Amino acid sequence: MREVAIVAAGMTRFGELWESSLRDLFADAALEALRAARTDRVDSIVVGCMAPGQFVGQEHLGPLMADQLGMAGVAATRVESACASGGVALRTAFLEVASGMSDLVLAAGVEKMNDGADVTAVLATAADQETEAYHGITFPGLYAMIARAHMQAKGTTEEDLAWVAVKNHRHGALNPKAQFGREVKLEDVMCSSMVSDPLRLLHCSPVTDGAAALLLCPLDQAKKYTDRPVKIRASGLATSTMALADRKDPAFLDAVELAGQRAYKMAGLAPQDVQVAEVHDCFTIAEVCCIEALGFVEKCGGRHAARTGETALGGRIPVNTSGGLKSKGHPVGATGVAQVIEIFEQLRGEAGERQVKGARIGLAQNMGGSGASSVVHILEGV
Amino acid sequence: MREVAIVAAGMTRFGELWESSLRDLFADAALEALRAARTDRVDSIVVGCMAPGQFVGQEHLGPLMADQLGMAGVAATRVESACASGGVALRTAFLEVASGMSDLVLAAGVEKMNDGADVTAVLATAADQETEAYHGITFPGLYAMIARAHMQAKGTTEEDLAWVAVKNHRHGALNPKAQFGREVKLEDVMCSSMVSDPLRLLHCSPVTDGAAALLLCPLDQAKKYTDRPVKIRASGLATSTMALADRKDPAFLDAVELAGQRAYKMAGLAPQDVQVAEVHDCFTIAEVCCIEALGFVEKCGGRHAARTGETALGGRIPVNTSGGLKSKGHPVGATGVAQVIEIFEQLRGEAGERQVKGARIGLAQNMGGSGASSVVHILEGV
Repeated sequence: MREVAIVAAGMTRFGELWESSLRDLFADAALEALRAARTDRVDSIVVGCMAPGQFVGQEHLGPLMADQLGMAGVAATRVESACASGGVALRTAFLEVASGMSDLVLAAGVEKMNDGADVTAVLATAADQETEAYHGITFPGLYAMIARAHMQAKGTTEEDLAWVAVKNHRHGALNPKAQFGREVKLEDVMCSSMVSDPLRLLHCSPVTDGAAALLLCPLDQAKKYTDRPVKIRASGLATSTMALADRKDPAFLDAVELAGQRAYKMAGLAPQDVQVAEVHDCFTIAEVCCIEALGFVEKCGGRHAARTGETALGGRIPVNTSGGLKSKGHPVGATGVAQVIEIFEQLRGEAGERQVKGARIGLAQNMGGSGASSVVHILEGV
Repeated sequence: MREVAIVAAGMTRFGELWESSLRDLFADAALEALRAARTDRVDSIVVGCMAPGQFVGQEHLGPLMADQLGMAGVAATRVESACASGGVALRTAFLEVASGMSDLVLAAGVEKMNDGADVTAVLATAADQETEAYHGITFPGLYAMIARAHMQAKGTTEEDLAWVAVKNHRHGALNPKAQFGREVKLEDVMCSSMVSDPLRLLHCSPVTDGAAALLLCPLDQAKKYTDRPVKIRASGLATSTMALADRKDPAFLDAVELAGQRAYKMAGLAPQDVQVAEVHDCFTIAEVCCIEALGFVEKCGGRHAARTGETALGGRIPVNTSGGLKSKGHPVGATGVAQVIEIFEQLRGEAGERQVKGARIGLAQNMGGSGASSVVHILEGV
């Protein structure tokens, strides 16, 4: 397997971008990455996107986006794993470079969610259609059940969860590309409208348009494109049961643990080697579960981490320095790529006010559905 | 890059399978492949499917199908390239094995088209939404324009096209898994109802439910699973402009030519080395264009091939011995995998009445949209 590096990144602002179409968003992010690497050509494109057919009536994004970039002809593929589509796009591009098939691959994620579709219904197609979605369940409902189970098993409180939102909005306030680049107070979260008990509005990531792109090449060719490549040390992908009710412990995300274990093993590293991480906080409870499953805290310790500042900038293991899905926004197909861009910038020392000093190893964890799929990448600044 | 072999295959009957759901179809094909290889576990699953969200309200097929097979935990991904989704799934699995990441990978395609959705509208999302689909164009319309352009440029006639249907139905009558396992006469085709001038009903592939699955592993591990592995000599993927109107020559499928050239180059082979081929005959005109673009006939010679028997069983280069999409059926996400299953069986000498004697090298070409994406695999019996 060839060693693979990330050499450039590009990303749109995240938000309700009514003036930009799916293809506009993709091109804006991709062209920023291409310009950064001073190239106008790649060998292959991998597009992560969850549901463009349902959101905007457009499938077949591989050739569409190649064409949009003026590169009709190049190999191009779309991959989908619900909200983990971006992370899986990176993994697919990583394997394409690692195999020797292609030398320069664009891994990009995009989603156009604000275009008139019934967003909650579209997102519900990431749940089990026959045993969950058909009966009316939505994702706020599924994560509310995870939260209730976590509360019962581990004593987690509404306030514990609210601290995750407070922390991530504090981080996001430092990120000029975040959808909600402003702080929220604990009482704002605690008093926001109830969405699905115990999850209130400010426990939920927003509906977002956006795109994010990365350029990958063999590590030994990276200096052609940048002075500061970031090496992909590992890629771990895992699944769990599709339906939440089929899991042994609904408060524990076993696919996240398994994807993490695969990535740690491939990298020859342990959780304590990681200095900065982005995890999939689609709801505040998700961050609590993910940091437990990834081994950043004890298996019952997730609930304290945001309140004590352990996972805040300046803490022991800063998590979601970008603002996370909660504050930065969550264009579902783009999220997994955007997470890796935050780590890429952190490891290059380019994160500005969000910089984790001396960060050399970073981790990004992306997740689909109620945790039925998860993908973990471990990166190293070289 | 590790050498990769196909060691087992499984496939449902193709047809209007009202009694089977998307997941049932997938599991039936996958379990047949697993049983053939005497294994109940894989390292990874790649699912090709075009539009399950639109057809049956279900995205996130990676974990769904892993779970359905009792393998929750394994890595699993969905890929999409419209009607080339199956071929791209095989390519993705091929790269995963070639890279060294996984040793045993299930590459499967599935589509459940008969479930109440507006099939023509769903398929139109594979065209360019902004410049084609939004204005009302459908795939019969796009291929009718390709046919008219071909007729004007190369003198192709309605009868030339009708011979493609006659030939492929003759082949399909020998395939017990074909949706239309019966012959049609030239006059049946010529008198069938007009769908989009000059394409009549019997020029069009049908609306089909079905699934197909392949098991891949490194060539040097293949003997664990079968006595007759088939080696993947090459995989070529290419794109063209998304919109038909943007092509220099709408009667020539340049993505098919480019994907073919990439595959021939990777394999170190030429068109005349191929003894049996499956090409993407979603409409009769598509087969004519594809055999020209792949170099099986002269660039203006496609129109004669079915009539003269050159591309029939017993001819110089038998094409679509399975019956093709036209007679076997076209469950869009499964098609690319099913094509490779026909070649796999031909190269193992297992194609029964459809056997091409002494076939050692075979090619499968799968295509998305009006030819905006195409993927070509070249296989060798070993």
